[in-house]
Amino acid sequence: MSPARPKIRLHVGDDLVAGARLSVGGNAAHYLSHVMRCAPGDEIAVFNGRDGEWRAVIDTVGRRDCVIRPVGLLRPQSAEPDLWLLFAPVKRAGTDFLIQKATELGVAVLQPVTTRRTVAGRVNLDRVRANAVEAAEQCGRLTVPEARAPAALSDLVDAWPAGRRLLFCDTAGAAPPAPAALARAPASDWAVLTGPEGGFDAGERDWLRGKAFVTPVSLGPRVLRAETAALAALALWQGILGDGR
Amino acid sequence: MSPARPKIRLHVGDDLVAGARLSVGGNAAHYLSHVMRCAPGDEIAVFNGRDGEWRAVIDTVGRRDCVIRPVGLLRPQSAEPDLWLLFAPVKRAGTDFLIQKATELGVAVLQPVTTRRTVAGRVNLDRVRANAVEAAEQCGRLTVPEARAPAALSDLVDAWPAGRRLLFCDTAGAAPPAPAALARAPASDWAVLTGPEGGFDAGERDWLRGKAFVTPVSLGPRVLRAETAALAALALWQGILGDGR
Repeated sequence: MSPARPKIRLHVGDDLVAGARLSVGGNAAHYLSHVMRCAPGDEIAVFNGRDGEWRAVIDTVGRRDCVIRPVGLLRPQSAEPDLWLLFAPVKRAGTDFLIQKATELGVAVLQPVTTRRTVAGRVNLDRVRANAVEAAEQCGRLTVPEARAPAALSDLVDAWPAGRRLLFCDTAGAAPPAPAALARAPASDWAVLTGPEGGFDAGERDWLRGKAFVTPVSLGPRVLRAETAALAALALWQGILGDGR
Repeated sequence: MSPARPKIRLHVGDDLVAGARLSVGGNAAHYLSHVMRCAPGDEIAVFNGRDGEWRAVIDTVGRRDCVIRPVGLLRPQSAEPDLWLLFAPVKRAGTDFLIQKATELGVAVLQPVTTRRTVAGRVNLDRVRANAVEAAEQCGRLTVPEARAPAALSDLVDAWPAGRRLLFCDTAGAAPPAPAALARAPASDWAVLTGPEGGFDAGERDWLRGKAFVTPVSLGPRVLRAETAALAALALWQGILGDGR
């Protein structure tokens, strides 16, 4: 019987091959040495988004640098849904929360967008990435979502990739319920778009609804906060078209 | 054309009838007077969970007491799904968040439960209620979820009401995906059960799965935090069986 799966899971940048000696610095070294009080010989799990999940042995533990050695594959890399989340940033606590939950719900790309009514300030991409890494480590996924630089929604839509559909969570006006719309949607890659507090403006909504790749949907009779709408849409998408089926 | 719907929405306890003069105290008075800086003559929307949503005129504004007068029905009371959420409390920020989101997602009853692995401390029911009221006011629903006193999961299950099914979000072992299980489930009232951080213990899981009213489900391949699991399950339930259809 194989030994128990290690409880500590760490995302690394290096290639994972048996016998390599990998240097782990920064927050991860602090986490191993001070938070988890690891010792040489302890085993952890590591993943890099490419080579699956590996069992690794800690060789040396330092405050600023630890050395770990991958020793065997725990899980091979596997395909994951290529689901994008386009979100208008909300207040910081809401955005932190959204990044964490979207990562747990299996988003592949986190794309902050500015819309006409976006009022939240600058997005701290380093903070987004750190939150995404931590959530990916905790939820057991084999990748960390890619955090892209903020872009104007209009630019993204004008250069929209062929073959990808956009689930437009429309908070105003009549749109088909999301579950029904997803159930009859064509197989394709998808992105979920949720708006800022206050929603999209009327011109923006009409413009989005006029695009052939846009599927406007309703998320029920209540007015969901921006981050709640995003999570509900992601949960429904994964349940109906993604890996929650 | 009727005047615009008031932007401020307030939950009150009193019966709503035209011409009544209602006294509003406590946090609500502070909110009207100091946060929103209302003046006599301003209009707000009020609801009490029984009489629909009313337009009301503010007669007097005080720091500790305001008087409002319902003047006309905006929306009649309507039926809402009788969905319960049984949740093992997590850390305070997680519980606050869960209450807010569960209210937005249309839960009728918030039932804290203790399970074998529940480690979070005491639930502050006043805080749960305050969070639920605020979320209900913001999301436009006509009710506030009922916050029940914490109870042992075993006691609740032993006295389970006839005709209600329990969606058991099982974080370990094999269970059918939630969307498929819900799509073929019998029409009935439902409760969603999510566990503490660390999940249910093996004996507890077997005992739950042995109950005829329990539907065990999986929420996908990732390990969701307790509050994320609850939200994903509620979003799927509303989308497939509830008012998000």
